[in-house]
Amino acid sequence: MFKIVSTSFFFFLNFFLFSQTGNVDENFAKIYNTALTKGKTYEWLEHLSNQIGGRLSGSFNARRAVEWAKEELELLELDSVWLQPVMVPKWVRGTFEYASIESSPGNTINVPICALGGSVATPSSGISANVIEVKDFEELERLGTNKIEGKIVFFNRPMRPDLINTFESYSKAVNQRFNGAEKAAKFGAKAVIVRSMNLRLDDYPHTGSMSYGNLKLRERIPAAAISTNGAELLSSMLSLNPNLKFFLKQNCKNYPDVLSYNVIGEIRGTKDPDEVILVGGHLDSWDLGDGAHDDGAGIVQSMEVLRIFKKLKFKPKKTIRAVFFMNEENGLRGALAYANHVKKINEKHLFALESDAGGFSPRGFSFDCKSRDFKKIISWKKYFEPYMVDYFVQGGSGADIGPLKNGQVVLAGLRPDSQRYFEYHHSDNDTFEAINKRELELGAAAMTALIYLVDTFGFE
Amino acid sequence: MFKIVSTSFFFFLNFFLFSQTGNVDENFAKIYNTALTKGKTYEWLEHLSNQIGGRLSGSFNARRAVEWAKEELELLELDSVWLQPVMVPKWVRGTFEYASIESSPGNTINVPICALGGSVATPSSGISANVIEVKDFEELERLGTNKIEGKIVFFNRPMRPDLINTFESYSKAVNQRFNGAEKAAKFGAKAVIVRSMNLRLDDYPHTGSMSYGNLKLRERIPAAAISTNGAELLSSMLSLNPNLKFFLKQNCKNYPDVLSYNVIGEIRGTKDPDEVILVGGHLDSWDLGDGAHDDGAGIVQSMEVLRIFKKLKFKPKKTIRAVFFMNEENGLRGALAYANHVKKINEKHLFALESDAGGFSPRGFSFDCKSRDFKKIISWKKYFEPYMVDYFVQGGSGADIGPLKNGQVVLAGLRPDSQRYFEYHHSDNDTFEAINKRELELGAAAMTALIYLVDTFGFE
Repeated sequence: MFKIVSTSFFFFLNFFLFSQTGNVDENFAKIYNTALTKGKTYEWLEHLSNQIGGRLSGSFNARRAVEWAKEELELLELDSVWLQPVMVPKWVRGTFEYASIESSPGNTINVPICALGGSVATPSSGISANVIEVKDFEELERLGTNKIEGKIVFFNRPMRPDLINTFESYSKAVNQRFNGAEKAAKFGAKAVIVRSMNLRLDDYPHTGSMSYGNLKLRERIPAAAISTNGAELLSSMLSLNPNLKFFLKQNCKNYPDVLSYNVIGEIRGTKDPDEVILVGGHLDSWDLGDGAHDDGAGIVQSMEVLRIFKKLKFKPKKTIRAVFFMNEENGLRGALAYANHVKKINEKHLFALESDAGGFSPRGFSFDCKSRDFKKIISWKKYFEPYMVDYFVQGGSGADIGPLKNGQVVLAGLRPDSQRYFEYHHSDNDTFEAINKRELELGAAAMTALIYLVDTFGFE
Repeated sequence: MFKIVSTSFFFFLNFFLFSQTGNVDENFAKIYNTALTKGKTYEWLEHLSNQIGGRLSGSFNARRAVEWAKEELELLELDSVWLQPVMVPKWVRGTFEYASIESSPGNTINVPICALGGSVATPSSGISANVIEVKDFEELERLGTNKIEGKIVFFNRPMRPDLINTFESYSKAVNQRFNGAEKAAKFGAKAVIVRSMNLRLDDYPHTGSMSYGNLKLRERIPAAAISTNGAELLSSMLSLNPNLKFFLKQNCKNYPDVLSYNVIGEIRGTKDPDEVILVGGHLDSWDLGDGAHDDGAGIVQSMEVLRIFKKLKFKPKKTIRAVFFMNEENGLRGALAYANHVKKINEKHLFALESDAGGFSPRGFSFDCKSRDFKKIISWKKYFEPYMVDYFVQGGSGADIGPLKNGQVVLAGLRPDSQRYFEYHHSDNDTFEAINKRELELGAAAMTALIYLVDTFGFE
């Protein structure tokens, strides 16, 4: 009886351990099998989303997320785990945000809004003003101070549903959110309301970062996002009554920078320990929802890459490092601090992979690299095809790894199916319930498999 | 002012109409634009799911679905719309289904079950018996009558999570559901309980078709599905107490066949009207949930193919026909009747496309055809790549179009991302809320684009 038990035990071990010299197909199977049958991503993300929650830079929750991530990395028995200090902005939403459309005195309809990250507050009594709706900055300039002064500017250019890549659609609409307040303030606007970056019509306002450029403190005007349904309503009410008033009240506030951290853990390479292969995502999130897709998913998937390697007793040739960047959402301070440090100590990064497009079913990767390197990568595509990961393109990678770009390092981004992503992104809607366990695990497996190939075959 | 209006009106018309001779890329853009900005699939599916609901063959709802589908096709002003009569099985779930685990007398836990489609009822007082858990039919046979007689057989082989293609995982587990009762009855079992065909652990039992083979009426035993969580619970309680009792009570019933219909509509071809290009799905669904993914999605997407062609004033060379098959779920009678009729009148079908894998983000198509035809199809892949539809494989197509197979007709199935599909499939969970508008529309656009190519370029 003992003999039978021990035989199957060794069979088991043998099946699940990495072939170091190995057959790529077999190792892929082991990686996927581990991720899909003994994965930890979902359990981790449940904790990060539900037990910690939204974790905006500088918040108490962001501190808890740093502590949690460090502890979890330590449990993986990596070669080292450390924190990299970084000063981050601290913006607090405050205790209320409220808006209504007043079509005639006393006749008001509440609409769902949220302050944009970094916005100043309204006066404590709120702002009530006429509204002028615009589609873009050209229209704003055509209207000029004469038509804008004293009004609330309503930016209402929708994300284009006809573009297949939802990130392209986002990038074509997001300047309204990021620069709208700065532009409108120059023409004397009292506030801006921006249509939420969301492809669906619903009642969730979506926050996100904004900048006042070099406006002085006293020139800054409050900025808020309105839900897509709210935007449609406001637009149609304006067409009936251009003189309606919009009331906005929010008491968000910017505080001085505070100390926070990137969380880093690594398995040292056995052959070229000074060459780093990075995998990561961002640990901060917006304060709405619990940041499960953006970017809790990327954090737990990156953690899973290291866990799978440890579990399979894979000894990488290069150093495999997970970096959980702080402050991607409103400052990118963690990413900049990390890249500066790498430059300062002249540390060689061979490859960096970021997951920051949601925890959805993985379709492939986008690579920012030289064509010679891309050619090599394309030769690996065949290994991924049985796993339905077949979208390999040259393009962007990820915001956090972008600052590492130096003409040498190969940068990559996981590309999940992001058709639903902007329905959750930066809103109350981005919660653990919107995560599918299997899809999350498939993403982690694809990332692990790619990192394994880079370590095994390298570039050149 | 009138002039401006009319100019933009014609510009609009021009942009949105098909170039009949035309540039494929431009026509693809028009198809996608129409589906994504002026689509009707979501609105239709809302009606079919929420206003009609689950529509099992032979039910009142199935009749309402037939009437609704015919009316909607008529509103599209097609060249013809008709019903094809077909006799279908009628099975009714009855007024109760109930199960519990009794670990000691009086100490019971309810577990979520549902009768399998076609199952006989239990005696009105229910069945209480010991349980024997098996993984497969080989194990069943090894145990034999001696160990099985008088017991409830519990089939508990999970769908394999390590297989990437969830349909493959389904096909490796589903014989427990389809043949389990027949096999177990031969060894004297009193009933069978089958682990739900679901990759997730949750509390939804999933129904589905089953067969008693050529068992006589009095030899048939009741069959029910248990939720995956229920199966896990039962299995662990059995390992603690192999003598526990399981109580099952259900009053489902088979009735004589009733008259129903396939619903059919077509745009006649301008050049080769006798050559048919078919697009379809199945109009019936299980009675649990509202059949939004299975296969409401396929119905509204097929309807949308015709609507987009009409809207773009595309005049197909061949006849484009939408067929909404009745009774895919428990008999395939509609599909067989349709194929028989086609054979009888010797009608040429060039191509048939089915959507029956959920209304998720489309990844590509699977083709059942000669290599020469597949080679031609592969040459079209380039047109789809900007739309992220790049998975073109040879393989199965769809259950309803399968009977058309004759070595000539090219059969195809839409292949959406089906990682989540079996969480909804045949359960209370398959509802309109689980449908994403944009993903549904993208599927309809991909189908329309493929049909357009087949009509334009044909085969040979």
